[in-house]
Amino acid sequence: MKVYIGRTGLMNQIIEALLSHRSVRHFEDKHLSKEQIEAIVLSAQAASTSSFIQAYSIIGITDPEKKKKLAELAGNQSYVAENGHFFIFCADLHRHEIISEMEEKDIMISLESTEKFMVMLIDAALAAQNAAIAAESLGLGICYIGGIRNNLQEVCDLLKTPKRVIPLFGMAVGYPKKLNEIKPRLPLSHIYHENEYEQDAINFRKQLEDYNEVISQYYNERTSGKRKDTWTEQMAEMFSQPKRMYMNDFIKKHGLDLK
Amino acid sequence: MKVYIGRTGLMNQIIEALLSHRSVRHFEDKHLSKEQIEAIVLSAQAASTSSFIQAYSIIGITDPEKKKKLAELAGNQSYVAENGHFFIFCADLHRHEIISEMEEKDIMISLESTEKFMVMLIDAALAAQNAAIAAESLGLGICYIGGIRNNLQEVCDLLKTPKRVIPLFGMAVGYPKKLNEIKPRLPLSHIYHENEYEQDAINFRKQLEDYNEVISQYYNERTSGKRKDTWTEQMAEMFSQPKRMYMNDFIKKHGLDLK
Repeated sequence: MKVYIGRTGLMNQIIEALLSHRSVRHFEDKHLSKEQIEAIVLSAQAASTSSFIQAYSIIGITDPEKKKKLAELAGNQSYVAENGHFFIFCADLHRHEIISEMEEKDIMISLESTEKFMVMLIDAALAAQNAAIAAESLGLGICYIGGIRNNLQEVCDLLKTPKRVIPLFGMAVGYPKKLNEIKPRLPLSHIYHENEYEQDAINFRKQLEDYNEVISQYYNERTSGKRKDTWTEQMAEMFSQPKRMYMNDFIKKHGLDLK
Repeated sequence: MKVYIGRTGLMNQIIEALLSHRSVRHFEDKHLSKEQIEAIVLSAQAASTSSFIQAYSIIGITDPEKKKKLAELAGNQSYVAENGHFFIFCADLHRHEIISEMEEKDIMISLESTEKFMVMLIDAALAAQNAAIAAESLGLGICYIGGIRNNLQEVCDLLKTPKRVIPLFGMAVGYPKKLNEIKPRLPLSHIYHENEYEQDAINFRKQLEDYNEVISQYYNERTSGKRKDTWTEQMAEMFSQPKRMYMNDFIKKHGLDLK
């Protein structure tokens, strides 16, 4: 991999691809091939996995009726139905329950622990991000869909998932019809600390205010002045409306007790 | 990106890189440059983030004393101290608490919800996997370190993290001294389902048994016959010993109540 100096420091083809990511929500009416799906799933599986536990499954949706139903459940997001392929990434300890029967070992305390719940989520997300990068490298666009968590019981019923399998998020993949601009992230100095978490309250707020200007300008330009909200406004508004408060009960009901 | 047909289907430079991943645990005694660290962190930040919340922070450790202490806390893993750079990925809603003060909005119910806890973990993991891929593209090796969760309170004290910041895992990065073989993953047909979760119990166990043979042979060849355990043996053994059972209390104590 040839490394060179780019606008933002060291660059190569891969870093350039990572930095070019934007979510895509408008896709051509063209399905992914079997080979594309396989390359994406194999790439997902190649990601690191905590102590090798591989605690996730991926469900690809091709049935148009199911896609339509999922689009409704996710809050009427049309691109959940209209894409080249729709993947659902699930945290999965069902497999390990079967293993405990095969090996005749009692693993219930682990299965129901908060620690293993965390491991499942992290494992599934690492795999998903590899899938995203593989898809983008094939000229496809992607969009993560957290909206499937609006109605998880219905999603589980639709996908016939067994106990201890939690669909976490979807990923719409396809040939991009429209490319958005890249959305500016928080300043690096705000996300990245050295040796300890920096707790200078004045600097902390200053960084957020600087970022607010960047985001406000981004929206302003993109919407010809119709939208100018700042990041902190957006976040405070979103967080002031609690969402998916059934989640704790749901997870417990599905055999992952958060103990 | 040129796409061609490889051993495992569609390939290009990026997919090839993803499929070549192996954890590296032996590094040259050579630090990462400021430019390398910046390229890795910017790549991490470019990953998707749930509803744009960017609910994570990254702490890079350069202080050799802190690295030694972290290596001890993570269960005496020497490569936590001996590497080119050590990153710690934290789930972070401290930022959003500050935002609620700035914007004068009450967001406590959201902050303490299981839903937002899931979002933080997923956000941090997506960012981390981008960091891993960026590092590997620069010719570096990486190893995720879940061991920092053995003693999270001590890790928090060491890093001076505020409330609502949970260090999730470390990532040792550096110039590889030794490259392991690539570890075979579960069969694609076991991880990937179409339209619904396949629940054929006989086939399910058959896939696991086939995989056991692959893993047993992998260990056998790598250890000149000293180790031949199967994957299901390994998993059942690991899960039969509950680990980090303090986690639920810890998370609640840190202001993320899993409600």
